[in-house]
Amino acid sequence: MALVHTGMTMSLDGFVADRRGGTARLSDPAAAGGSEYMDALIRATGAVVMGRRTFAMAEDPDWFVGNYEFQVPIFVLTHTPPPVMPAQDGRLTFTFVTDGIASAIAQAKAAAGDRVVQALGASVVQQVLRAGLADELHVDVAPVLLGEGLRLFDDPDLEGVALEKVGVQEVGGFTSLRFRVVT
Amino acid sequence: MALVHTGMTMSLDGFVADRRGGTARLSDPAAAGGSEYMDALIRATGAVVMGRRTFAMAEDPDWFVGNYEFQVPIFVLTHTPPPVMPAQDGRLTFTFVTDGIASAIAQAKAAAGDRVVQALGASVVQQVLRAGLADELHVDVAPVLLGEGLRLFDDPDLEGVALEKVGVQEVGGFTSLRFRVVT
Repeated sequence: MALVHTGMTMSLDGFVADRRGGTARLSDPAAAGGSEYMDALIRATGAVVMGRRTFAMAEDPDWFVGNYEFQVPIFVLTHTPPPVMPAQDGRLTFTFVTDGIASAIAQAKAAAGDRVVQALGASVVQQVLRAGLADELHVDVAPVLLGEGLRLFDDPDLEGVALEKVGVQEVGGFTSLRFRVVT
Repeated sequence: MALVHTGMTMSLDGFVADRRGGTARLSDPAAAGGSEYMDALIRATGAVVMGRRTFAMAEDPDWFVGNYEFQVPIFVLTHTPPPVMPAQDGRLTFTFVTDGIASAIAQAKAAAGDRVVQALGASVVQQVLRAGLADELHVDVAPVLLGEGLRLFDDPDLEGVALEKVGVQEVGGFTSLRFRVVT
């Protein structure tokens, strides 16, 4: 059964986007395409669950095929599916899920086979943790302070989530923290 | 000249105290008294700058002598010094500084000799970073989500602070992240 990994890159002060919505300062050139770290992540991933906001960060929805790091089935959690289906191919498909995080995760697990489901985006991270659907939480800490913006963790209900550190890896200037979510 | 290190332990979601002001879940038994990590930190420290809030967390101000991990000169940044001077001894002294962070840091540097000044407490961390007075920022990430409480970083003006990762150390379940503050 596919495991569910959630998390993303945040600044040391906890932001996944700056005050203008930008994420450039959260990208590590050393960690980008071709690195061993990303290659391993890509090989391990069988499906992705993302929120509407993450999906919309690509200005052209047809950009994903051939460009997005994960060329796998993508499940977009949204109340308003786009009127036109974005480009898909034999590897990267889109499913717009309107009935909640549990449904999105269940569909992604079925698609991922024995590989991992990546649940990505600040809102999705919070939802999947709150719902007890995540097996691991991975946070990559960028060596930067953004001051304000969109926080990765901004939810009082996360207080009950118990974590156990399973690994720490330095990736360029970034630090990748991996936790098992204890249920 | 003494270097200034600032930072503290925060939950993975960025809090230094929970919604009730508690910090028990941010204490790692493995990292506590007697550990190599704490011993090295204590040996390196020549003076401490703390805020009024950190000072007041000890319900009895006389508790510091003989109990606080850093038995060194302590400079408390406050607008309202206590009416009665807390207990002091030949190693741990108290100075209440009412004329701002730059003055507190200057006095602490003079007291620290060639050892390090630790600037501690969420408000002090933010002030010392904003004022460009910190040489290093150390954040120990606790494997816990607190949901809400007092944030370590909650200041838009921190956006301009540039960091360079200089070290990562696992201490029990905690991860100690050390950054040079680039000026």
